[in-house]
Amino acid sequence: MTELPATKSIVLPHPLRTWCGDTLEGVQQVYETWGQPRGNGDNTLVIFTGLSPSAHAASSAADPEEGWWEAMIGPGRPIDTDHWHVICFNSLGSCFGSTGPGSVNPATGQPWRLDFPELRVEDIAAAAHAALMEMGLERVHGVIGPSMGGMTALAFLLRYPGVARHFLSISSALRALPFAIAIRSLQREAIRSDPAWQGGNYHPEQPPVTGMRLARKLGMISYRSAGEWVERFGRRMMAEPDPGFGPRFEIESYLEAQADRFVGGFDPNCYIYLSRAMDLFDVDEHAGEGQDALGVLDYLGSAAVVGVDSDILFPAQQQRALAEGLERVGIPVSYSELASIQGHDAFLVDHDRFGPVIADYLEKIRGA
Amino acid sequence: MTELPATKSIVLPHPLRTWCGDTLEGVQQVYETWGQPRGNGDNTLVIFTGLSPSAHAASSAADPEEGWWEAMIGPGRPIDTDHWHVICFNSLGSCFGSTGPGSVNPATGQPWRLDFPELRVEDIAAAAHAALMEMGLERVHGVIGPSMGGMTALAFLLRYPGVARHFLSISSALRALPFAIAIRSLQREAIRSDPAWQGGNYHPEQPPVTGMRLARKLGMISYRSAGEWVERFGRRMMAEPDPGFGPRFEIESYLEAQADRFVGGFDPNCYIYLSRAMDLFDVDEHAGEGQDALGVLDYLGSAAVVGVDSDILFPAQQQRALAEGLERVGIPVSYSELASIQGHDAFLVDHDRFGPVIADYLEKIRGA
Repeated sequence: MTELPATKSIVLPHPLRTWCGDTLEGVQQVYETWGQPRGNGDNTLVIFTGLSPSAHAASSAADPEEGWWEAMIGPGRPIDTDHWHVICFNSLGSCFGSTGPGSVNPATGQPWRLDFPELRVEDIAAAAHAALMEMGLERVHGVIGPSMGGMTALAFLLRYPGVARHFLSISSALRALPFAIAIRSLQREAIRSDPAWQGGNYHPEQPPVTGMRLARKLGMISYRSAGEWVERFGRRMMAEPDPGFGPRFEIESYLEAQADRFVGGFDPNCYIYLSRAMDLFDVDEHAGEGQDALGVLDYLGSAAVVGVDSDILFPAQQQRALAEGLERVGIPVSYSELASIQGHDAFLVDHDRFGPVIADYLEKIRGA
Repeated sequence: MTELPATKSIVLPHPLRTWCGDTLEGVQQVYETWGQPRGNGDNTLVIFTGLSPSAHAASSAADPEEGWWEAMIGPGRPIDTDHWHVICFNSLGSCFGSTGPGSVNPATGQPWRLDFPELRVEDIAAAAHAALMEMGLERVHGVIGPSMGGMTALAFLLRYPGVARHFLSISSALRALPFAIAIRSLQREAIRSDPAWQGGNYHPEQPPVTGMRLARKLGMISYRSAGEWVERFGRRMMAEPDPGFGPRFEIESYLEAQADRFVGGFDPNCYIYLSRAMDLFDVDEHAGEGQDALGVLDYLGSAAVVGVDSDILFPAQQQRALAEGLERVGIPVSYSELASIQGHDAFLVDHDRFGPVIADYLEKIRGA
């Protein structure tokens, strides 16, 4: 459990009834904010995150450390905090302050670990919604979600009609497809089959490092694109290649470095819970047989769907399916399929392509 | 080490000098044959295999068990054994009879394990070439190689100019690209980080099953396509989904079944050696700086390059690069990019698309 300097926190006053019917008492919902609120949520944008980030999306006076979406959020940036009041929630189930499998179960005084109830993206949305109510924000202007955050945003919009007026989906999807489920299943298996995992009961100081490294490396393979790696690494060898079966190619040392940065920073049980929550998300669960789940979203004033043509985890056809689904129920949709070679992660790194698209959409909905 | 009923074997009379400068004494080269030889290799086709198959590509009187390319090889099949004399080599370094890390090092009387010298695709080609010489086949009509087998075929053609007249490459490449290297690097890491691997010194009865299962599942993710899995599995749940973090979706039980079939059938050290050999292959090693490595292949009468548009491991652009490279040195090339949804593995399963293309090319070179 990592507490960050700019983190704000709300303990939800009511028990959270989960999507699968369990009850969570005393849920802590952590978030950060930027910019000044005006009116009654009139200039508020809510950001839901992908699987691994914290609520620290950008630096602030309270925490000058660079955030995970630093280039996008701030005065004069695409999500311009001179105008917008921005709230980024740390997902329920994560390990950066919000209640999750690493938190203490109030009923036992022990960490939840695998006794944490089944987590769904709908629960992440519910905890955030309850926190907004506590903040007195019964309405917000828009919700923004990249990757898993887009699924959370969809769950939020479907469960709480009318709370938000606009929706910006980035490299997300209406549901998980089997290729993405397979990748995540292997990541979980790598962690769960590491003897150090101990059935989820590892000591916090002795996490399943080997499994987490494998999971992160496989993640990077799915987050980036083959084309990017040809350009960045080609077949270049490391300065000191391993003479045995360790890393020899630069692509291998890149993956090593990515694993080094990740391990220790993310709780393995939280990872497994959030990963499975993504697999299980499907908008169709929000409608009866034969009904269009997106129908309830017709209250939205607009939506933007942004994706990347080299994304193999949330591929372009899923972006088109989301945009078409929203248009089908009468929502004006701005659709952008960006020609970035940086794959699923492009929204984190390809600022030149993402910045203008996000700025344009937010300009369009400003005051709308 | 698995011996198969129809396996023939040659112990090479001379030490094999490896591409990296080591010496292997008493190399055993295993193969199977179908059809009757005519002339002096005039109707002989040599098949090099992908990473995991044995020499048992098809059934025969000696071994009625179905082979890994059963639909392609036999009387009246695309590789028609009423006309062709077909030889399939088990790769040096593999575990189905040919010398490899699981074989006994004659110098010590102990299994080689990780003392086996660095293996390159060029060595697989060299052992097969030496075996052909022993069979009295100084010329063959053509070489056929799917996947790693295509790399082996290229190495063979580059190292032994004039021995073969025609070349059929299937879903292969001029070199490994970083995406494929990354996938294989993770597969090796999964095996090597399994405590049961014991630094390569596992007991044959206690192999690193967990690592091999992960490696095989990751292999399947790279061998098939996301589109195929949408069609085959979608988001269907298993009849008895695991209530915890084990398999719930049919795609997960499919991967389980694939791992079940693989583990125990393939030696982990052999896997690691062959996997790394693929990473290291690059036709450019066969030429000086600034020279076209393929230039030496101008003796070929023809080539066919067949690939699949949904292949993420040996993607279509690598198929085009190979075809263009061969054309550039004046070889007439038949190029086919098949619209199969079965990805890299399509040559093993999409008989309707591969059968006619292979049959047409072999018809064209028959007697040519």
